Amino acid sequence: MIDATHDPARTSWVASANGHSDFPIQNLPFGIFSPKDGAPRGGVAIGEEILDLGVALKLGLFEGEAQDAAAAASGPRLNAFFALGAGPRQALRARLAEVLDASGAERAAVEAKAGALLHRAADCTAHLPAAIGDYTDFYAGICHATNVGQLFRPDNPLLPNYKYVPIGYHGRASSIGVSAGAVRRPNGQRKRADEAEPSFGPSRNLDYELELGVFIGAGNALGEPIPIAGAGSHIAGFCLLNDWSARDIQGWEYQPLGPFLAKNFATTLSPWVVTPEALAPFRIPQPPRPEGDPAPLPYLLDAQDQAAGALDITLEVLIETGAMAAKGLAPHRLSRGSSRDLYWTFAQLVAHHASGGCNLSPGDLLGTGTISGPAPDSFGSLLELSRGGKAPLTLASGEERRFLEDGDTVIFRGRATREGFASIGFGECRGTVLPAPAV
Amino acid sequence: MIDATHDPARTSWVASANGHSDFPIQNLPFGIFSPKDGAPRGGVAIGEEILDLGVALKLGLFEGEAQDAAAAASGPRLNAFFALGAGPRQALRARLAEVLDASGAERAAVEAKAGALLHRAADCTAHLPAAIGDYTDFYAGICHATNVGQLFRPDNPLLPNYKYVPIGYHGRASSIGVSAGAVRRPNGQRKRADEAEPSFGPSRNLDYELELGVFIGAGNALGEPIPIAGAGSHIAGFCLLNDWSARDIQGWEYQPLGPFLAKNFATTLSPWVVTPEALAPFRIPQPPRPEGDPAPLPYLLDAQDQAAGALDITLEVLIETGAMAAKGLAPHRLSRGSSRDLYWTFAQLVAHHASGGCNLSPGDLLGTGTISGPAPDSFGSLLELSRGGKAPLTLASGEERRFLEDGDTVIFRGRATREGFASIGFGECRGTVLPAPAV
Repeated sequence: MIDATHDPARTSWVASANGHSDFPIQNLPFGIFSPKDGAPRGGVAIGEEILDLGVALKLGLFEGEAQDAAAAASGPRLNAFFALGAGPRQALRARLAEVLDASGAERAAVEAKAGALLHRAADCTAHLPAAIGDYTDFYAGICHATNVGQLFRPDNPLLPNYKYVPIGYHGRASSIGVSAGAVRRPNGQRKRADEAEPSFGPSRNLDYELELGVFIGAGNALGEPIPIAGAGSHIAGFCLLNDWSARDIQGWEYQPLGPFLAKNFATTLSPWVVTPEALAPFRIPQPPRPEGDPAPLPYLLDAQDQAAGALDITLEVLIETGAMAAKGLAPHRLSRGSSRDLYWTFAQLVAHHASGGCNLSPGDLLGTGTISGPAPDSFGSLLELSRGGKAPLTLASGEERRFLEDGDTVIFRGRATREGFASIGFGECRGTVLPAPAV
Repeated sequence: MIDATHDPARTSWVASANGHSDFPIQNLPFGIFSPKDGAPRGGVAIGEEILDLGVALKLGLFEGEAQDAAAAASGPRLNAFFALGAGPRQALRARLAEVLDASGAERAAVEAKAGALLHRAADCTAHLPAAIGDYTDFYAGICHATNVGQLFRPDNPLLPNYKYVPIGYHGRASSIGVSAGAVRRPNGQRKRADEAEPSFGPSRNLDYELELGVFIGAGNALGEPIPIAGAGSHIAGFCLLNDWSARDIQGWEYQPLGPFLAKNFATTLSPWVVTPEALAPFRIPQPPRPEGDPAPLPYLLDAQDQAAGALDITLEVLIETGAMAAKGLAPHRLSRGSSRDLYWTFAQLVAHHASGGCNLSPGDLLGTGTISGPAPDSFGSLLELSRGGKAPLTLASGEERRFLEDGDTVIFRGRATREGFASIGFGECRGTVLPAPAV
């Protein structure tokens, strides 16, 4: 639903929110932060500032549903806020837009309290938005699935189930962190084709995977599926997600039960949860399936979801090597793609997940799977960009990369743009590779 | 370590604990229960009673480390107790054995308070012992892996990685429950070999898997592996685990990322956590690997673990169909095996899990994977017993089973026995199959 919160003419009295900020007044994403020497608490990103929801509550800025929502969002985790669902979230969003509006009736009174209400984001520490009970990673990027399948199974890149089943697997919740994080290269069992036996040591083929993360809002009871109609309303918001992957460990361990240690050493999220309401203008129809593809089975098919269940978010991956950082060179862009290249909608992922009765809980996290487009400059992992390491990339610094080296920083950015609307962003998802522990 | 808590001559003044109880004074497993109209709390099973740790604390029965442990174990979840590690747990165990001893110096004083201290287990409700942050299921039963591999890949039953990598995958934490639970048959995508396309509906091949569950005690920090020497000390205790499995959904969905909806609709645990201390007499050497098998890689090899890292626990599976229950017939035993038939020790599972830096937390749960022995009467799933459904079993009631029918109750029992020691048990892990929701 498009409403006054999307008005592109609206500006904020927080000056840094106007212009090209990821966080203009039309965005208002939620997250958990701590100011210097302060405890973790809920906040809303606005320009280069963070509005402290607990302080805003104490100032009496909210009433009714918005007040309930702010109370639930002001603690150290957003789970209770996510659990409230769309109504209270929308009420809080609408009220926040009023409070921060440059032309708002209460501007003078609110701005007078800015010293207490706002924290400079650069001085704050980001935390996980929620206690993530369960994390599920899907595989909904069909170009990625095809590219990877061609490397592992040249004769049979896309398995027969792919176009029927939103393929997914359970990931590790404990090792999820937020940007900007450091990621220690894992040790593990690796076996090259020319080696008779595996050896244990640092992963030689460390990679990133570009994904969107989806936070669950209202959940479902065990044994009670979520119908596809309305499944999208169980989503509390979106973030960027780096599914760090050790390709050599993965190749050796993954059969028959899937990735395990190749993935569970780290997952990194962008700290801000961009709401479905902020993304409403960027909804697009699910792109039509290629001729000959089967239609989704009825439990995954909903006309409204097909008409507006996808999102057009431009996604970029950049790398900053240690040498580039030392020389002050700008990060090198590795790829640029869009979330429109997902084979399943977000609602389909939710409905499929719960279709056998599995219970989803507020704060659970879904990853979409790596988002790659059809063109090589839109591939969302080094595995694809370097064709399994066979075709090294030359960076702007003159360095080569097959996979990630120690000291490399990987940066994801996401931005939604549409004519007639204010463009909004996700902030960065950034992580730096540290050397493996000694074996 | 064998000590006075293992003395087979010791009996309890709780009369039901003496004789053939699963919970004699030599066991003393921990769990969470609620008495009628009471809140969940920590307790210790003794015969047909449960000792209420909070009441025992208030009565002043503990001091020092035992008191700290009882305080951590008396709340609604055992995570804080598990986090304390072995020392406080051992101190509490030793003190509980004194308090419950038929010949204990304080018997008269303690027994006088039995009305407040003890609850009849039959009148109580069992709860999950801990908030399970992450659940991992291994595949350490080599006979099971071989049997299943033969059904799915006749030419290639055991993949090349099996004898090097303790194969595992992440499972779903939210749908784990305790015995006696009801399990709703899942709907899902199924496709028979003779069908051109999958359809969505109730699983036709619902199965159980007999496993041991392992609760993590003290955890590790992200990026800091747990060395194999001492990895066993990160285990807080053991239970029985039913990894309910929808074989038809599994067969269609599992490639390339492993089981997902085929498993995440339900997992059932026996409610009592049997401690490593109670199981100390039943430690055995890890059975030697067959000639020609590779030795474990150094990060998984520890002389002490090889010498005493396995457990000999007899495991039984029984079925009670709706018809058997209606006629009052005794459950039919489907199999009887032993936890000695695991290819990896429990310490190897822990060390492997953390070897890439993945952080384990107190209360995390590991499943061993299905425990089958070499003989058909020790196979731990119907998939194996009925050879993929091709060889139906005839039950004592005259009924046939390929897979589970609605109304069937599956019962696991576990018991450790050794000459010169009191035999201890795990209590039951029981679950009844309910019909799938209407599609």
